[in-house]
Amino acid sequence: MQTSHRKKIFAAADGHSFARMGIIGGGQLAKMTAQAALQLGCEVVVLDREKHSPAAQLATRSLVGDWDDPQELLKLASQVDVVTIENEFLNPDALAVIENAGRELYPNTATLRRVQDKLIQKKILNQCGLPTTHFAEVGSVEDVIKFGSEYSWPIVLKTRRNGYDGKGNFTINAVDEVALAWRALAEAGNAVYVEAFCPYTRELATIVTRSALGSVVVYPVVETVQRNHICHLVRAPAQISTGIAQTAASFALRAIEAIDGTGSFGVEMFLTNSDQVLINELAPRVHNSGHYSIEACVCSQFENHVRAVMGLPLGSTAMVSPSAGMVNLLGARKGSGAPLGMARALGITGAHIHVYGKAMTSAGRKMGHITALGDDIDSAESIARQAANLIDFGGENED
Amino acid sequence: MQTSHRKKIFAAADGHSFARMGIIGGGQLAKMTAQAALQLGCEVVVLDREKHSPAAQLATRSLVGDWDDPQELLKLASQVDVVTIENEFLNPDALAVIENAGRELYPNTATLRRVQDKLIQKKILNQCGLPTTHFAEVGSVEDVIKFGSEYSWPIVLKTRRNGYDGKGNFTINAVDEVALAWRALAEAGNAVYVEAFCPYTRELATIVTRSALGSVVVYPVVETVQRNHICHLVRAPAQISTGIAQTAASFALRAIEAIDGTGSFGVEMFLTNSDQVLINELAPRVHNSGHYSIEACVCSQFENHVRAVMGLPLGSTAMVSPSAGMVNLLGARKGSGAPLGMARALGITGAHIHVYGKAMTSAGRKMGHITALGDDIDSAESIARQAANLIDFGGENED
Repeated sequence: MQTSHRKKIFAAADGHSFARMGIIGGGQLAKMTAQAALQLGCEVVVLDREKHSPAAQLATRSLVGDWDDPQELLKLASQVDVVTIENEFLNPDALAVIENAGRELYPNTATLRRVQDKLIQKKILNQCGLPTTHFAEVGSVEDVIKFGSEYSWPIVLKTRRNGYDGKGNFTINAVDEVALAWRALAEAGNAVYVEAFCPYTRELATIVTRSALGSVVVYPVVETVQRNHICHLVRAPAQISTGIAQTAASFALRAIEAIDGTGSFGVEMFLTNSDQVLINELAPRVHNSGHYSIEACVCSQFENHVRAVMGLPLGSTAMVSPSAGMVNLLGARKGSGAPLGMARALGITGAHIHVYGKAMTSAGRKMGHITALGDDIDSAESIARQAANLIDFGGENED
Repeated sequence: MQTSHRKKIFAAADGHSFARMGIIGGGQLAKMTAQAALQLGCEVVVLDREKHSPAAQLATRSLVGDWDDPQELLKLASQVDVVTIENEFLNPDALAVIENAGRELYPNTATLRRVQDKLIQKKILNQCGLPTTHFAEVGSVEDVIKFGSEYSWPIVLKTRRNGYDGKGNFTINAVDEVALAWRALAEAGNAVYVEAFCPYTRELATIVTRSALGSVVVYPVVETVQRNHICHLVRAPAQISTGIAQTAASFALRAIEAIDGTGSFGVEMFLTNSDQVLINELAPRVHNSGHYSIEACVCSQFENHVRAVMGLPLGSTAMVSPSAGMVNLLGARKGSGAPLGMARALGITGAHIHVYGKAMTSAGRKMGHITALGDDIDSAESIARQAANLIDFGGENED
């Protein structure tokens, strides 16, 4: 990190003009980051491909353009003190124009390159002594078969880039399915690698926020429950022993140090049936497993992200309530992005309802989330679930 | 309230399109109301005289125009499902065009007329059996002298309209000051009335939110501490007996019923040295004494205001922490509205800093606020104070 740049941001956040943050991408993560920045008095400029993005609705200004176009990126960077991102699929070669122009970008392209290619990501983690599932680079069907024979079936063939929510993954249950998987992913033009199947008992996650000034904080370790490979439920904190929680938190922290990350990062982990913690995946951005922190923590993952990239002191990650439950609101089918059932759902006491404001929905699309606090995790989860069950997205087919 | 209108808003908040809220005024109260509405997925349109208002920075759309101009008001109303206000000085004769056009306005002009004229407000309160300080209509210097002789000096001459933060008030300590006060207020063209001086031990306040559907909630009763007639500090909950707190809450609720208010309302009260609760003043809008509710209550005064005017169920006003302290950030002198000292202030753990984003400041102007939660009121207040002491507005004269 360049000291002169740090000083510049610091001055912007502490000087005669308002600090200005640019966000590449205008989805819900950008929206919630913008909300935190606006509360602190920052100006927010959003760049998205669509005019009516969730974050554009509340940005101070918004730009519409292709985020892989260097000219659009420079235009954004020229209007702000620091640029950040809300998705991990951006092209680092394009993003580099921001750094080459001497402007601030956090996380930077070096960090992004370490995370975007999952094979490189896992190699870095292992090099630092951080455990992951077994994996291997594969260049042919034979390589895959060899790996399956060595680690036993099933195994998972994965694209090295651009996978999310189960997309880009192919579970291979036996040797006769290898060819099919290879055709679906590798022959479709993707660089791939292979992973041993991890027989986990729970999926854990946490958020690590690391500041441009070098300080770092870790949020409580939570349990995530997926449904069709999409995060469905978060239970905070995870109901695990203190020892396991501390191990997971320390792995997460070391992982973000290893990629030299600046900002808030999601760290997904597995807890195996022998109580081992393995790192599954890093996300170079605020993360769905940390949305509960808006209501449940002293300082949310979003506000800490803003503080981190602005070079400001980080806030406390302590929970303000013993437990929190977070349930995602997903689209049921193609249709309007406006929610049905809000009046009933708001009748559930303690349900904090977030609707992202996406114009349209489709099956499985993340449209909002609900967080509830509670003295115990089950009652918090129950409140969030009750409210979530009353809301429906995709109302065009309904009354 | 018109049932057909209620149904329409309800449908808007629960139908195929996003609910849309219009706010007349773009200051910090509109900004925080907009933040709550945007979280719920509403669109927000703001009408302000200035282009760069705090709320315009995050509104979905903003209109610039005179809010006393019926055409501007109709333009706003035509773009939204419901219109609300953030200040009590609007002209009800102009606002009536919204109602006359069959559009929703909450609070409505009838409520506004009951509150804006403080003499009428106090008469209504007394008619409902709600105690206030003694007051009288006065038409001449002689009337004032008569009132002073009856209730003993000092007394306070007040304008019936447009007073705030001590403006429009003149304390008369003795009979020889009456002429001066009369010249300053009455002869300057203001309708005036007179109040007995209330020897209170504390100032109390609470927020009452009343829904367009008729339900009502009351927030915890807090203590407010003024400095130069401007709210400086809020301690939540007030350190008073349960009996006094219940009396104050019940008076506040009855007061807002008496004016048939819809939305969140501030109720300012005195606690006299004989432990009597008197109502001092009503504000037909969200109120500075309720800002602590953003972090400290399950549902903030802002979200409940949105719910109330949209005809949605109201949220819980319970505190999520035993205590909270809120300190206002005021301008020190004329200058830039950007804060100095943010980096130091954010280093105070637990300080929730809100910067409103006003372009310019001046001495005593409300530029932001800081809330802190705590197990006891003194530690919460101490955290908020520490952080507030590190922030300065009006930096153009500083290094």
